[in-house]
Amino acid sequence: MAPSVCTACSNGNGNDNNGKDYLDPPPALLLDTAELTKWSLYRAAIAEFTATLLFVYIAIATVIGHNHQSSTACSSGAGILGIAWSFGGTIFVLVYSTAGISGGHINPAVTFALLLARKLTLLRAVFYIVSQCVGAIFGAAIARSVHGRARYLLHGGGANELAPGFSAAAGLGAEVVGTFVLVYIVFSATDPKRKARDCHVPVLAPLPIGFAVFMVHLATIPITGTGINPARSLGAAVAYNGDKAWSEHWIFWVGPLLGAALAMVYHEFVLRGKAMASFRRSNYTAAAAY
Amino acid sequence: MAPSVCTACSNGNGNDNNGKDYLDPPPALLLDTAELTKWSLYRAAIAEFTATLLFVYIAIATVIGHNHQSSTACSSGAGILGIAWSFGGTIFVLVYSTAGISGGHINPAVTFALLLARKLTLLRAVFYIVSQCVGAIFGAAIARSVHGRARYLLHGGGANELAPGFSAAAGLGAEVVGTFVLVYIVFSATDPKRKARDCHVPVLAPLPIGFAVFMVHLATIPITGTGINPARSLGAAVAYNGDKAWSEHWIFWVGPLLGAALAMVYHEFVLRGKAMASFRRSNYTAAAAY
Amino acid sequence: MAPSVCTACSNGNGNDNNGKDYLDPPPALLLDTAELTKWSLYRAAIAEFTATLLFVYIAIATVIGHNHQSSTACSSGAGILGIAWSFGGTIFVLVYSTAGISGGHINPAVTFALLLARKLTLLRAVFYIVSQCVGAIFGAAIARSVHGRARYLLHGGGANELAPGFSAAAGLGAEVVGTFVLVYIVFSATDPKRKARDCHVPVLAPLPIGFAVFMVHLATIPITGTGINPARSLGAAVAYNGDKAWSEHWIFWVGPLLGAALAMVYHEFVLRGKAMASFRRSNYTAAAAY
Amino acid sequence: MAPSVCTACSNGNGNDNNGKDYLDPPPALLLDTAELTKWSLYRAAIAEFTATLLFVYIAIATVIGHNHQSSTACSSGAGILGIAWSFGGTIFVLVYSTAGISGGHINPAVTFALLLARKLTLLRAVFYIVSQCVGAIFGAAIARSVHGRARYLLHGGGANELAPGFSAAAGLGAEVVGTFVLVYIVFSATDPKRKARDCHVPVLAPLPIGFAVFMVHLATIPITGTGINPARSLGAAVAYNGDKAWSEHWIFWVGPLLGAALAMVYHEFVLRGKAMASFRRSNYTAAAAY
Repeated sequence: MAPSVCTACSNGNGNDNNGKDYLDPPPALLLDTAELTKWSLYRAAIAEFTATLLFVYIAIATVIGHNHQSSTACSSGAGILGIAWSFGGTIFVLVYSTAGISGGHINPAVTFALLLARKLTLLRAVFYIVSQCVGAIFGAAIARSVHGRARYLLHGGGANELAPGFSAAAGLGAEVVGTFVLVYIVFSATDPKRKARDCHVPVLAPLPIGFAVFMVHLATIPITGTGINPARSLGAAVAYNGDKAWSEHWIFWVGPLLGAALAMVYHEFVLRGKAMASFRRSNYTAAAAY
Repeated sequence: MAPSVCTACSNGNGNDNNGKDYLDPPPALLLDTAELTKWSLYRAAIAEFTATLLFVYIAIATVIGHNHQSSTACSSGAGILGIAWSFGGTIFVLVYSTAGISGGHINPAVTFALLLARKLTLLRAVFYIVSQCVGAIFGAAIARSVHGRARYLLHGGGANELAPGFSAAAGLGAEVVGTFVLVYIVFSATDPKRKARDCHVPVLAPLPIGFAVFMVHLATIPITGTGINPARSLGAAVAYNGDKAWSEHWIFWVGPLLGAALAMVYHEFVLRGKAMASFRRSNYTAAAAY
Repeated sequence: MAPSVCTACSNGNGNDNNGKDYLDPPPALLLDTAELTKWSLYRAAIAEFTATLLFVYIAIATVIGHNHQSSTACSSGAGILGIAWSFGGTIFVLVYSTAGISGGHINPAVTFALLLARKLTLLRAVFYIVSQCVGAIFGAAIARSVHGRARYLLHGGGANELAPGFSAAAGLGAEVVGTFVLVYIVFSATDPKRKARDCHVPVLAPLPIGFAVFMVHLATIPITGTGINPARSLGAAVAYNGDKAWSEHWIFWVGPLLGAALAMVYHEFVLRGKAMASFRRSNYTAAAAY
Repeated sequence: MAPSVCTACSNGNGNDNNGKDYLDPPPALLLDTAELTKWSLYRAAIAEFTATLLFVYIAIATVIGHNHQSSTACSSGAGILGIAWSFGGTIFVLVYSTAGISGGHINPAVTFALLLARKLTLLRAVFYIVSQCVGAIFGAAIARSVHGRARYLLHGGGANELAPGFSAAAGLGAEVVGTFVLVYIVFSATDPKRKARDCHVPVLAPLPIGFAVFMVHLATIPITGTGINPARSLGAAVAYNGDKAWSEHWIFWVGPLLGAALAMVYHEFVLRGKAMASFRRSNYTAAAAY
């Protein structure tokens, strides 16, 4: 199913990058103080704040609404499937609408992996992660105030906890692999090589990213409720403020960040072979026709 | 996940707009009487009427059918998830098919926000909103006649009401934030800046707009039944004609219009910085490379 | 949400058609005997046969499987939502894969509307409708043989019948409006005007067509089981062969063909104004900028 | 719904291939030993291994999680619909992200059909199928270790077995037709003729491929649990290791490989007419306008 080279596009992008039809941007600086003087950094942080707020509000409100309706009548709520759609579909629409402003991370694990791959500065990564965490807390707080404190706490507040019968190791594994899937899709969807060959792929990119979130929720809601996004876990934990949620909260930072780092290594070093550049460079002419 | 500049497209659109690769159209006139002589205005109003009629018919018929089947056997209907799909998916297909004729608003809150952003004339906005409201009443009436008066009234008529245990403030908040999400996606999807950089994005635009409607329904059906569209709420209220639906009807105008206005302010003034044009203009050259 | 003119595309298609940036093909002949000598006609009929066979097999098997599982344990089947997905999603993938061969009608109502709009010859329309009906009978027969005669008949055979409490008029209305929605989306998605302005839209076309089928099923499964496709209704009626299914079978031909004809009139005469060409021609220059 | 010729694209691809606007690549060699010296072969095998591992982990974890939650409370799990989404949606995102590396087969039946059509070498096909099978075993093993041995075995391990009341012939038929649907979509989505005419279609290709998997699961989960992918069936059988799963395991190799071969024959010989090239060549000029 390999897409053909769409020459209309690759010609448009020029074909003079050492025989490659794409251009890997140079690694981002760790600290670029000039960035601090640009409005675009603050605008991007605002966009990450707002998108994470809306994401957490919609998703947590769906969880509480489902639990509330299910407690009234047999299977009358949105269901596990509806909850998984809410998380995944909201990521789809918010990545779609925010990508042009900030890149549409909406998730510290995504920002962390892109930082490791040197795709944004450390300064920008810190701005993003703080904005995401604060936005998530506001989003959960709005869901709590719309539903009211009593109903919100009664129905678990959308907080991530290990389900009965699952060990911390099982939960951690589920978070690692789940975040691996998400971050692998993110790297694949935004790969400059893919964009050069098939320049319209970014059009579709937010959809598989949202679907990855949807799929991972279907698989791991019964295990951890599914984090794969430390800001989402933090926001719900703050608004819910339960002992179990806090004592297991480390799982929802360690798992996602570890899974994100592994996906970065897999995509950049194994698939793209950046660490093996010297080995691959010599074969490049032969491989270019592929 | 920021899409690269697709030069094939931006070249096609010309690159001579003061160094910007896109062109913001001038603000629409409030009143353009020449518009009244053009068939395209009436055709657009007919398209809005028909699309809103079909939207409300499909969505309300799904609600009544679900309630009817569920009352017969436990969880045998389409479910909350099916209802949310019906609203969101129908918006997707109708925006897709109507966008080329009228813009595909199908919602007075969307028309109101685009009017505030000076993207259509006041005259056209009035034509659209009236067409939407009349279309919605017809759509709900068709759903009522297909199901029959007794079954329609028994199952609540698809009218928007506060669920038991929710205050007017909670319902209003849910409507404000829900409409904010929808209108933010609409503005983002139709932003001329986005279209210039990545000119194929409009292809996908109806899908995230439909998904936004879907997601907001998952989150707020348990609270208000989800309005976020005053025409839809009005159509169902007229066909159902219940006291509670009418006494709470103001929520489904005030909430959506307020949320739509806030989303317009957020997108146009915060993200696009139109009010801050003088500040940003001086930084434009530096930011253009971003 | 009106897409901008994508000049890269419209230039590619030439701009010399009397000032229009698109070309309406001339009306198809009613009878083009030269067509009979071309392999492409027979290949298209085979493609319609196969696609309708696969569509009816997948969709009917889903219905029987759902009824079978639900009869065993509370709500353990795919649900009404799963059935609606099966019909709509299968149409999506089969239109996607068959459009390049035959146009991907897979439905006599669609073929009928396109014939009325003079988009294919009468000869080809007859070939298609016969192929669709025979394919649907085979598809239902395969579903029946995989499930076995007893289970297939026990669970209603996927045949379209009026649900208890619905009159023939209600069922007919539901079929008319439902097919109107589907055929309106089909005409909109394949409009030459749309394709010229925004030439990549066809990429997405099968998706809204499939979604239209999905949405109509959500709305009208509780009423008629949803036909909106006479071949599908005929195939299931033949394989099920029940008295009620046969006595109500006329609804599933009259309703869809009437709805399809109305949608053709709405799209071609009201929206595209083909009957009003002389009126519109004089205003064309003014409208071209729109 | 036949898409128009998008001249911007076909011009870009050149128009000098004997009057055709597309180029069928020559048949792949059966054995190309030079391939063994290229990193791209090993990278592709790694990508198939990883993608099949992630696919089987996500899908099997969803099955076990559903069965676990349903056993606790009536219809509280993801449901048959959620399971079908998990299989289909995961294939969508993994084909999307892996297509550029290996073609994104993730299924020995797909690789087998492409080998029969001479679209990859025998050597590469063997590498892929071994990688897929080993990846699937690892994926099922991870799902088993996350859920724990007891829960995994209690809930059937996601292994494919005939449901009570279905004969081996019925199961085999369901697997044959189901895989036919999937492989037909794969061939259609990656047809060079389609790509030339409408060069952006590959953008959407992973979506209908994933939907085909989703639809077939809706139809045949009640019959066989749905294989249509021998690696997935093998991985679950190894991790579950039950007598019934092993004694019926042949169905999940014979059915998919037979269905895949039939789909290849249908697409390549019937629709594309490769065996009838001499017949069609003479008519080509006449048909080119179609």
